[in-house]
Amino acid sequence: MAGAGGVDLLAEQLVAAVGAAHVLTDPDVMAGFERDWTGRWQGRARLVVRPGTTAEVAQVVQICAAVGVAIVPQGGNTGLVGGAVPDAGAVILHLGRLDHLDPVDLTSAQVTAGAGVTLARLQDHVGAAGLAFPVDLAARDSATVGGMVATNAGGLHVLRYGGMRSQVVGVEAVMANGGIVRRLDGLIKDNTGYDLPGLLCGSEGTLAVVTAARLRLSPLFAHRVTALIGLEGLPAALDLVARLRTLTSLEAAEVMFASGIDIVCAHTGLPAPFPVRYPCVLLVECAAATDPVDDLAAALLAAPEPLDTAVATAGAARAGLWSWRERHTEAVNAIGVPHKLDVTLPLGSMAAFESEVRPLIEKVAPGATTVIFGHVGDGNLHVNVVGPAPDDDGVDDAVFRLVAAHHGSISAEHGIGRAKRGWLDLTRSADDIAAMAAIKMAFDPGGLFNPGVLLP
Amino acid sequence: MAGAGGVDLLAEQLVAAVGAAHVLTDPDVMAGFERDWTGRWQGRARLVVRPGTTAEVAQVVQICAAVGVAIVPQGGNTGLVGGAVPDAGAVILHLGRLDHLDPVDLTSAQVTAGAGVTLARLQDHVGAAGLAFPVDLAARDSATVGGMVATNAGGLHVLRYGGMRSQVVGVEAVMANGGIVRRLDGLIKDNTGYDLPGLLCGSEGTLAVVTAARLRLSPLFAHRVTALIGLEGLPAALDLVARLRTLTSLEAAEVMFASGIDIVCAHTGLPAPFPVRYPCVLLVECAAATDPVDDLAAALLAAPEPLDTAVATAGAARAGLWSWRERHTEAVNAIGVPHKLDVTLPLGSMAAFESEVRPLIEKVAPGATTVIFGHVGDGNLHVNVVGPAPDDDGVDDAVFRLVAAHHGSISAEHGIGRAKRGWLDLTRSADDIAAMAAIKMAFDPGGLFNPGVLLP
Repeated sequence: MAGAGGVDLLAEQLVAAVGAAHVLTDPDVMAGFERDWTGRWQGRARLVVRPGTTAEVAQVVQICAAVGVAIVPQGGNTGLVGGAVPDAGAVILHLGRLDHLDPVDLTSAQVTAGAGVTLARLQDHVGAAGLAFPVDLAARDSATVGGMVATNAGGLHVLRYGGMRSQVVGVEAVMANGGIVRRLDGLIKDNTGYDLPGLLCGSEGTLAVVTAARLRLSPLFAHRVTALIGLEGLPAALDLVARLRTLTSLEAAEVMFASGIDIVCAHTGLPAPFPVRYPCVLLVECAAATDPVDDLAAALLAAPEPLDTAVATAGAARAGLWSWRERHTEAVNAIGVPHKLDVTLPLGSMAAFESEVRPLIEKVAPGATTVIFGHVGDGNLHVNVVGPAPDDDGVDDAVFRLVAAHHGSISAEHGIGRAKRGWLDLTRSADDIAAMAAIKMAFDPGGLFNPGVLLP
Repeated sequence: MAGAGGVDLLAEQLVAAVGAAHVLTDPDVMAGFERDWTGRWQGRARLVVRPGTTAEVAQVVQICAAVGVAIVPQGGNTGLVGGAVPDAGAVILHLGRLDHLDPVDLTSAQVTAGAGVTLARLQDHVGAAGLAFPVDLAARDSATVGGMVATNAGGLHVLRYGGMRSQVVGVEAVMANGGIVRRLDGLIKDNTGYDLPGLLCGSEGTLAVVTAARLRLSPLFAHRVTALIGLEGLPAALDLVARLRTLTSLEAAEVMFASGIDIVCAHTGLPAPFPVRYPCVLLVECAAATDPVDDLAAALLAAPEPLDTAVATAGAARAGLWSWRERHTEAVNAIGVPHKLDVTLPLGSMAAFESEVRPLIEKVAPGATTVIFGHVGDGNLHVNVVGPAPDDDGVDDAVFRLVAAHHGSISAEHGIGRAKRGWLDLTRSADDIAAMAAIKMAFDPGGLFNPGVLLP
């Protein structure tokens, strides 16, 4: 941490730029920004600054660059890899006040949103215009557009629409020298140079500060059906999802396992979803302009064996079916501070991985609780392990090595952050990491943005 | 051009790397690689080298880097902006021999293809496996996967699937230092670092040499219907396409104009498509698992005014309807060497642009022939101007300035190449161009790859 004199001068300059109300230095107030919500990641910031416009962001960047103080951009602080947790002495650049939302452009089915707009507010806004935003995730009330761009957020609908990068038509961003790159015209085709929006998407705040995004919207479907299906295991879930993809308007396919559902029920008081304790439970949701119930029912009836299924079409009943899936996270956190390992497997290796990873974790961390769930259509499993100390890397290391052996990815949608950068070379070659390091150096030669995140 | 002694030593080293049969130095043989197919762009290469493997590409890059000779990567040489035409003395690195095609991965609906695979061969290969490749364009018999990645090719189906970047799950590429970056595992979600595949897509050979790509595939639809529709003008076409997008399984929407159709008919001997000479003719194609004819017919019948329409479902009849559109290019080339100006407008400005650009061209280049056609669902118009000398920039300048005034893009899908780099700053700010120049410097500090292309 820099000396007290430096703190004052920097704070004074920032107050002059954004106003005293938006420079936070009280340790009690800052505490909420310094710690991630799982409690696994904790840092110490010099101060928190909350600019209200893109021009103010540019001023903040220039002020910090001039004195060589690092910047940690932060949105809803719902990340899971410590990517928005500060190193000692860094300034947290909080983007929550950049919350402007343009009217929905119905001709292009796009909207421009400030970095600080929450996903829930974006969904409400475009829903009122008769459209939907294709990305949805459980942290929707807190997660922001800027954070979702910076982390290339995935979520529940990737199998139909792709992740955040697929929705980003353009961005506005402040560069390390305070310059502003603005690509918000919303052109569907634009081959005039390198894809800066796509590059910033997923760069985890290490290259520039994303201040706004031009986003693609999807149809708001009038009809939606959700089904919860009891199955013998992950192979059966994969087979069923493959069939549903071609036969129905599938929008989500989430997998859970018996031991995880037990924990959810114990923590939340929810009843068991079925009288039988199935090893694997699949939640699927279809959405379409015309009622998708018949297509889903026909596809389920055509399954080789009869399936135990609960189906809902009305909003409250659908939310009820989702509750077993969505309350996994809080149930895991209630046990202790989790290691949240978010991995992708090639679809063909997913079942083998799931059967191998449980005994592996038991061997590395005897007595730990393992809860697995995930987005089965994307090959994405969330492996949650509670029991080892937060700073014990043994479980992470073992799981990531198993992932690499299956040619998977050590981060499906959470990113690398501080949590995984020590393992980046498991699946990225030295040439690949060198290319990424060269990009970092090109954008941020002074190491201003989010030092200690992503690159080794 | 370097001295003769240098030529010999370089050629000898390249012969040692790839074999004598694959180093071309005969001026007559090289001529076909030095000139683009429109005839507007012509260069002079030192030699043409045709490596057969990724390792050989890396060797070629290292050999050229060691002696400081520039490299121009070339695929099917169907580009339209001079992006594969060499500066004096450069080596053309032709990728046609990297033509391996992996078996289609049916589980993930993906395939890995070498840079030299033509689009037509890729389409045949994945079609035999019951899938389709989402990008299609008229140059399909020559255009290659590597060139399509490097230029982020667009084409006929962007309104449904997006362009090439949307299909690229991963790439293999040779960097300027001869290192090889390989991301071909085909993971649907992978947030382990910067999006190098997306960055290389559309980089026009200026950052690295793309040697292979992992590509997303789409369903191969059993049913397809094509309609040719006579309309009063572009506003009517835009309205109709907006309605067809929501009501049908629309896959292509191409617009032509009366004067262009006249030229096509005069050059090819095709009859006029309708007894009435409509100002604007729209071609639409729908494709689906179940027959889309009824949906299309219902949507057309619901139009405010009766429409003059020709419809076809069988392959040969559909090809007949496409012929007016697909033969535009050869008809234009038959008149003379065209200025091919490929631009995007925001959908709301497209009709105004089309009505303004014709008198503008007539003023700047009196007597020139202007033929406009394009992908109307994407806001993409191809403005072809024949009459001015190939090196007369007056028309290009006037059209690009009109595009910029409408907040459009001076390149929708062709790229910048040599043709448009003087105008890049019309729609890209100094900060934006500086960020792109920094990326170029990071990847290729010696200026080895495609000097004179893309950046000012």
